Amino acid sequence: MDTPETYEPLTSEELPSRLGHLAALTSRLGNNPDQWHVEEIGDGNLNLVFVVRGESGAVIVKQALPYIRLVGDSWPLPLSRAFFEYHALIRQSNRDPHSVPEVLHFEEDQALIVMEFLDQHVILRSLLIGGKRVNNLGLRLGKFIARNAFRGSDLALPIIDRKADTKLFLDNHALCNITESLVFTDPYFDAELNHHNAVIDGVVASLRQNITLKTEAQVMLTKFVANSETLLHGDLHTGSVMCTEDSVRIIDPEFATYGPMGFDLGMMLANLVMAYISQPAHRSSGELNSYQSWILEVIEDLVVAFTEEFSALWHSERSGVLFPHSLFEDQQHDANLPLEGKLREIWSDALGFCGIEMHRRTLSLAHNADFETIEDVAHRGELEEQNLIAGAQLIIERHSIADVKAMMAVVQKPQMAN
Amino acid sequence: MDTPETYEPLTSEELPSRLGHLAALTSRLGNNPDQWHVEEIGDGNLNLVFVVRGESGAVIVKQALPYIRLVGDSWPLPLSRAFFEYHALIRQSNRDPHSVPEVLHFEEDQALIVMEFLDQHVILRSLLIGGKRVNNLGLRLGKFIARNAFRGSDLALPIIDRKADTKLFLDNHALCNITESLVFTDPYFDAELNHHNAVIDGVVASLRQNITLKTEAQVMLTKFVANSETLLHGDLHTGSVMCTEDSVRIIDPEFATYGPMGFDLGMMLANLVMAYISQPAHRSSGELNSYQSWILEVIEDLVVAFTEEFSALWHSERSGVLFPHSLFEDQQHDANLPLEGKLREIWSDALGFCGIEMHRRTLSLAHNADFETIEDVAHRGELEEQNLIAGAQLIIERHSIADVKAMMAVVQKPQMAN
Repeated sequence: MDTPETYEPLTSEELPSRLGHLAALTSRLGNNPDQWHVEEIGDGNLNLVFVVRGESGAVIVKQALPYIRLVGDSWPLPLSRAFFEYHALIRQSNRDPHSVPEVLHFEEDQALIVMEFLDQHVILRSLLIGGKRVNNLGLRLGKFIARNAFRGSDLALPIIDRKADTKLFLDNHALCNITESLVFTDPYFDAELNHHNAVIDGVVASLRQNITLKTEAQVMLTKFVANSETLLHGDLHTGSVMCTEDSVRIIDPEFATYGPMGFDLGMMLANLVMAYISQPAHRSSGELNSYQSWILEVIEDLVVAFTEEFSALWHSERSGVLFPHSLFEDQQHDANLPLEGKLREIWSDALGFCGIEMHRRTLSLAHNADFETIEDVAHRGELEEQNLIAGAQLIIERHSIADVKAMMAVVQKPQMAN
Repeated sequence: MDTPETYEPLTSEELPSRLGHLAALTSRLGNNPDQWHVEEIGDGNLNLVFVVRGESGAVIVKQALPYIRLVGDSWPLPLSRAFFEYHALIRQSNRDPHSVPEVLHFEEDQALIVMEFLDQHVILRSLLIGGKRVNNLGLRLGKFIARNAFRGSDLALPIIDRKADTKLFLDNHALCNITESLVFTDPYFDAELNHHNAVIDGVVASLRQNITLKTEAQVMLTKFVANSETLLHGDLHTGSVMCTEDSVRIIDPEFATYGPMGFDLGMMLANLVMAYISQPAHRSSGELNSYQSWILEVIEDLVVAFTEEFSALWHSERSGVLFPHSLFEDQQHDANLPLEGKLREIWSDALGFCGIEMHRRTLSLAHNADFETIEDVAHRGELEEQNLIAGAQLIIERHSIADVKAMMAVVQKPQMAN
């Protein structure tokens, strides 16, 4: 699609000679490239990811491949996604310092980003399946989402800058197309790339008969494709978060696009909810309650942190064209009324996106390890059904589910919505 | 701002020698430029507009000026608006043939469009002030708005084309900035460029104290700036429509931008409503009832035509990524349910935009001749107050005003909303 002639995928063997001249690497690794140790740790489906270790440190080298490899086939995917990942990382780092890996070097024609190696960090999804805890996880995620939502929007930016940036990211349409079809549409009909556990056939059929559900999913898609409110991460699930016990970093924003503020929030909530729902298959009964309670706390903390941070920024950094001080503060009029309306809109949107993400992760192409690693298909099916029915209820009833407690009540005891 | 070095405003005297070589003109006017008769008919504030007549016909030459002239001052405005007007006219002509003047020639560096001369056509606003009727006016306007709304959106276009076009029109930000401030924000505080009839001071003050109203106006602005659903005309008032008794043409789309589907509909409704409200000052009591009834019919016809045309296109031309046939028709599921939801959303948005346009035309920089030509300031004030109070009620109660009859009941007997 847009592969430059000079583009050449790296190999572990060639990496030191090809990149050994870059100060971005030598300053971290030391000046002896022939002594660097290179290990490819990507799954090889989408990107090459190398850990490069030298005498004085380590870095990550991530290079996009011009395709996604699927089962027995390959799907072309433009290298430009590295360009959008780079631009998203830079903006996220400015809007929420230390939330993402530091970018050390970018080469557009090689679709290559050299970035900070996150020592000791493990993918959050694995930690959740493994029953591990991360301190301040909800707080950190909530602030990241709020700061990016607010500071990337017309609430904060000069509108001319936001529009120029929207133009830039509109070229990331190939990645957005994946979200449009795999997330929003495929789950709701018998699409070619779908697969699901045969045990849940009945529930799946009844969801696909639900015209209201399909309508509401498309209402959310309408918002996703056309409502360019703020710069989204675009793929903010628990596989895009790396943690130690005390550190949380967000990675992999190649799906970055301008979209509605509730999208990243809803995606992250969905993935935490799926971690919650799948726990009975991963924990002994002795650990289950305590660990599920911890996930519940993370979810509540996340929503509280998002709300508090967004509200603080509303009062302290509202300098864009929307809801200007001239109409509120300058007339001694309370700016909390419009804030409450905005938060309600973000919350109901987030519930809609959350339910859709819960559906696509059990029905569409890309499933979650939270469920996929459950070997007992009958037990998996029960949990997947809970997940599907809860997702439908969150989508359809999103305007009347007032808060995170009401949301978790739906997750715990969902009822098939009409 | 973006004035090319070669740009030079035309004069009536120079026009034949500068444009006499163009087939676009000679094919309509004949091959004797020195016998062409040129008349400048623009108001000179924003654009030069020439009627050029030759032995075999006439054309319009419209050239943008690099500023708007205000009272004693000038406001730079980029010539690129001619580029956006040209691109909007081409798209509108494709999506609704014969709805706009035919474009004969475009020169980007001269910000110049040569277009069809609309013989015998008069600006609709003058006709409405003068008590004249136009056959099928509502039908024609409703179809124009529906066809452009539908055919310019992700309901119809390949999304990659819609996104590329959204990028193109995102550069029209200088014109959009005017709408953002003059339409949505200035009316609701004591902005520098505002002016209004002193008679209505009390009502104006109470509107500006209404935090709910200001909040809802900013909710509508949020949709306008970020919701790039379809290509809008962007300035669709009764001064942008030219008519004979049997012909309706839409002109002047230099404010074209991607925005929410309800915007053009709401703007046009507002201007027809203001024509309706101002009639008691323009008609004798003998004519008043009958002429107001005709305007009311036009408004009803417009909404019916919009709804019917949009619905017909929904069923016959829905080929974009939104609400795909795979989820509805292909599963023998009725696509009317999502259509009804979409129409409800467009309608409540349109009521919001309608109320805001009614406000800005009495409070912000650019007022309407419908009210401005009323010499008796007390009588004008009464009608302007009706207009302001109705506008506020339409904005605040837009989700519960079910149809055009309910809307006109508000217009006829508005109540100050809280």
